Amino acid sequence: MDALQTLLAIDDIRAVKARYCRLLDTKDWSGFAALFTDDAVMDVSEDTGNPPITGIPAIVAQVRFAVDDAATSHQVHTPEITLAGNDTALGVWAMQDRVVWREGLSPIPGVASITGYGQYHESYRREGGEWKIAALRLSRFHVDMHTA
Amino acid sequence: MDALQTLLAIDDIRAVKARYCRLLDTKDWSGFAALFTDDAVMDVSEDTGNPPITGIPAIVAQVRFAVDDAATSHQVHTPEITLAGNDTALGVWAMQDRVVWREGLSPIPGVASITGYGQYHESYRREGGEWKIAALRLSRFHVDMHTA
Amino acid sequence: MDALQTLLAIDDIRAVKARYCRLLDTKDWSGFAALFTDDAVMDVSEDTGNPPITGIPAIVAQVRFAVDDAATSHQVHTPEITLAGNDTALGVWAMQDRVVWREGLSPIPGVASITGYGQYHESYRREGGEWKIAALRLSRFHVDMHTA
Repeated sequence: MDALQTLLAIDDIRAVKARYCRLLDTKDWSGFAALFTDDAVMDVSEDTGNPPITGIPAIVAQVRFAVDDAATSHQVHTPEITLAGNDTALGVWAMQDRVVWREGLSPIPGVASITGYGQYHESYRREGGEWKIAALRLSRFHVDMHTA
Repeated sequence: MDALQTLLAIDDIRAVKARYCRLLDTKDWSGFAALFTDDAVMDVSEDTGNPPITGIPAIVAQVRFAVDDAATSHQVHTPEITLAGNDTALGVWAMQDRVVWREGLSPIPGVASITGYGQYHESYRREGGEWKIAALRLSRFHVDMHTA
Repeated sequence: MDALQTLLAIDDIRAVKARYCRLLDTKDWSGFAALFTDDAVMDVSEDTGNPPITGIPAIVAQVRFAVDDAATSHQVHTPEITLAGNDTALGVWAMQDRVVWREGLSPIPGVASITGYGQYHESYRREGGEWKIAALRLSRFHVDMHTA
């Protein structure tokens, strides 16, 4: 890939992750589902204690369980994106999420809302000209648990 | 527009929004004013309950009323920017603002500071080679109100 | 430098700052050291009251003193990056840092953690084809001091 194609690919991947945040925070689950490859793997075990899961239906179900009853704000900050081939790439993003559950609907006993800090470690695959998330692992630096 | 021109335009627009945050947070109101088209529309009705306003003097007055007596930090995260023509574009930005009013100067009764989470929905127009903000609407996911 | 080379340089510099955050927050001090020029100057006097320091060993020692005993999350938001020559550049970044010291290890009496808001004002130099940080000054809009 030449320099211009590389820049275009990196910009496309940045936009995919921006859409990830927007579609998650606006609860547009069909749009959100379309961001992933069919065989995508999501690993949020540091948050949940559950093992990684595979496939779009399982990913959407897991995310909805966590945030469907909450006002959420996901932020992704300046990333490191590296092309691994013509149609594959890797990315690391510093992230923050604010999750405020509706009263009584938090899945965490005694916790009304969180502010989390960490990183998304991801891989991407281009399918039919479109970059998609093929793997996502969330690591945490710190999570603030709020009682209100 | 070819691919290179598109990338340059997107980078220019990103820098306009970075300047928006810097000039707002450093209270450089003449620099801030120059970021907007003469007919720009600002809609922060979700925050204020007031209808959208038009034109640079009204925009600057509204923003100064909200934050001139506060330490502020505006953040704009990875955006989605789409060119709509040679000289027009659309953008959506996840945003966060921390606003800490000087003692006794908060416009919100009982509130000393806020941490807000939301999105800027914007359009841009290129005038004389320079990208400017033609419309800005702020939507909110959540606003934390702090008593200190 | 032509437009494509300019875009590539700006993207490289963005990635340098993303690495700065990652290597700092994962406490990879040899990787962190390699981000700076040998004569780099770091000025965090607004935080520490100490004068600017010069050189990689002093920079790494200062940063480790501040955060080695803490969970940290550094965020850098949409920047303004300007090339000043073929191998020199300037940058301003809105930033946020969350620093949570391990119990009893905070260097600030009575403070268990902070959430800071401000800007990195930086210059960069390309050496052997690689962009490095030649100067970093941290300015603050506001710092929240938390007792827990």
